[in-house]
Amino acid sequence: MPKFPNFADRIKSLSGSIFEKYQFRMKEMGEKLVKLHIGDSYLSPTYQLPVDDLFLKENPGYNHYCNTFGIPELRNVLVEKLKADNYFSNITENKILITNGATNALNISVQTLLNPGEDVLVLTPCWPFFFGMVRMAGGNIIEAPFYTLLYQEQDLNLKDYLDNFLTENVVAVYFNTPNNPSGKVVNKKQQEQIAQWIQKHDLWLISDEAYDGMTYDNNIHVSIGSLPGMLERTISIFTFSKVFMFAGLRLGYAVSSKENITNLNKVAVHQLYSPSTLAQQMMVKPVKTRYDWKDVFVSHSQTLRDLCIAKLSIPVQIPEAGYYLFFSIEDFMKGKTYWEIIDRCIENGVSVAPGKEFGSDFTNYIRICFTGEPSERLEVGVERLNSILGI
Amino acid sequence: MPKFPNFADRIKSLSGSIFEKYQFRMKEMGEKLVKLHIGDSYLSPTYQLPVDDLFLKENPGYNHYCNTFGIPELRNVLVEKLKADNYFSNITENKILITNGATNALNISVQTLLNPGEDVLVLTPCWPFFFGMVRMAGGNIIEAPFYTLLYQEQDLNLKDYLDNFLTENVVAVYFNTPNNPSGKVVNKKQQEQIAQWIQKHDLWLISDEAYDGMTYDNNIHVSIGSLPGMLERTISIFTFSKVFMFAGLRLGYAVSSKENITNLNKVAVHQLYSPSTLAQQMMVKPVKTRYDWKDVFVSHSQTLRDLCIAKLSIPVQIPEAGYYLFFSIEDFMKGKTYWEIIDRCIENGVSVAPGKEFGSDFTNYIRICFTGEPSERLEVGVERLNSILGI
Repeated sequence: MPKFPNFADRIKSLSGSIFEKYQFRMKEMGEKLVKLHIGDSYLSPTYQLPVDDLFLKENPGYNHYCNTFGIPELRNVLVEKLKADNYFSNITENKILITNGATNALNISVQTLLNPGEDVLVLTPCWPFFFGMVRMAGGNIIEAPFYTLLYQEQDLNLKDYLDNFLTENVVAVYFNTPNNPSGKVVNKKQQEQIAQWIQKHDLWLISDEAYDGMTYDNNIHVSIGSLPGMLERTISIFTFSKVFMFAGLRLGYAVSSKENITNLNKVAVHQLYSPSTLAQQMMVKPVKTRYDWKDVFVSHSQTLRDLCIAKLSIPVQIPEAGYYLFFSIEDFMKGKTYWEIIDRCIENGVSVAPGKEFGSDFTNYIRICFTGEPSERLEVGVERLNSILGI
Repeated sequence: MPKFPNFADRIKSLSGSIFEKYQFRMKEMGEKLVKLHIGDSYLSPTYQLPVDDLFLKENPGYNHYCNTFGIPELRNVLVEKLKADNYFSNITENKILITNGATNALNISVQTLLNPGEDVLVLTPCWPFFFGMVRMAGGNIIEAPFYTLLYQEQDLNLKDYLDNFLTENVVAVYFNTPNNPSGKVVNKKQQEQIAQWIQKHDLWLISDEAYDGMTYDNNIHVSIGSLPGMLERTISIFTFSKVFMFAGLRLGYAVSSKENITNLNKVAVHQLYSPSTLAQQMMVKPVKTRYDWKDVFVSHSQTLRDLCIAKLSIPVQIPEAGYYLFFSIEDFMKGKTYWEIIDRCIENGVSVAPGKEFGSDFTNYIRICFTGEPSERLEVGVERLNSILGI
């Protein structure tokens, strides 16, 4: 059974590159080595991409296969970012795997850690696609309502609470802070309790930190993988799709021990070889210059959050981070079924995300995104919602 | 058992988007619909990409999540390409899934078609990563030496030959023409025999056509999925990494029936959501203008092939397509072991790909790539190889 520190059985069936043992020697030879083992063309494409000439000159490998762990330049600036922004103390390039978005990092983690028939403890509400990832790997899901509960009971004894959901079959926990959809930021004290519980039971932790950097009201995001003893049992997952605003480049990254990253990479090369070389090259400077531009986006998002809450006639929990309001409409359905309400939303020109996608305890919730539309349209959407909910 | 037309069990566990049933209605409403169900930001990134301004203006969605099947503009030009270049007669946009390279399309196909414990018939020599993909899905591999044999026996009765390898447990066949590593182009008559055999036994066919467009000496590549009755049982897989020369963008595509593509997409969204929006936008024009530029690359590659063969002291089969020479060194090892030869290659500054990676019948072969180095360096590499092999 692949509880920490064991990997899923499928990992044993994946060999690394046959050139691993020659890697050092080949690197050492540099230009002297004539590479006839590869499957690429040395030529630049005859077709010119609509990309800045100077950039292409400075990044000559843009059209070629790259290191499957990610280009060194990007992993290099991410080392600095992880130390400065996420307080990882002992991070080096070989503890980072660049992936095709956080989605890809999450799937790779599940495939690396989970055997068919084993359980994953999923703290809910959570990002809907994770359920399918576990099922695709043949695993079972145990849901534990968590983030909405933390808003109500901030002093909850987390170890006792989590004990209620632990089975012999649980090998990993899916944890997500800042949380989508609730916007909950799990604070450091709470995370320390979770970390102790994970260590006590020798579990793996999949930590989804897609909304890293998107916190409001001086809430601080702590990376649980940076807590003592946690790096080697946590896969910390980040993305360029949220605060970096480049969802269309499809880049993210996983952070863990070197051994874990080596095994995640085996799955990655068999799933997609690597994410785009060019996209990786394009993200080096945004990481370096992040302090110059990201606050503009975060504070604008906070303004949209506040506008949305002010216009909405239902009293809702103020999210501490992220893009969403997540709330129950149970008291506003007036004899209609939940799905009649959702149908009415579409008919009246406002789409919302149904709560049950985020966990089976949230069938009467809806999630609305306050960053996806400009403020005037956001107001129109909220007004339509107010009128559908009859308030 | 998921022989054609059944999918692997894991597909049943993957639901499509909850918005599928609203899709038509939402599209119809256009701008009137205020979209609060999404998880994206409407803003353009504060950080400016090194991409042509006009291009970004003409492709406003470049930084956003896109249709997970691929952007309509790219699938649209690929419909035209598949009709003109690959003789698919009945192709529409919804029969195409854009993937993160052919690698990703192959993995998605295996995950969609294969249950643990089932067999895949792999025609060899073949691309090494495919073996790991089958094992990762819990499947077994049956190898059938094929492409090198076809060079020797072009009139081989393929149906009788393939019967030798068929088990009750085989659900799919992995077929690759133009073949990596042998450069064999399986001709139309041979493909018709394979197609009949596939249909007779109700098998799935995974057709890897990564080297589509890279044929020499007027050899013609036929897409087996375009033969009568084959579209719905074949996943035809193409890439932008070879003749398009954009391996660094990590884009490929799968072509099949609408139903098959819908199921492949379920795996894709759970693996990586989608490939890069920006990269897809950048590949629209190269597809449209392919006749203007691709012959330059193909004829240059043919020149490199001929140079490589002329300089190499071992007589080898002339490849009909692709990037490689693939040949046995058995008669030139002079008492050394195979791995001593490989070690010597590295020590003497020339790397080659070991044959056993391409199938268990090729442990005395090596593959050399004639497109990965400029001609002067290619000559140096071949001379080093000649001297190691003592000829």
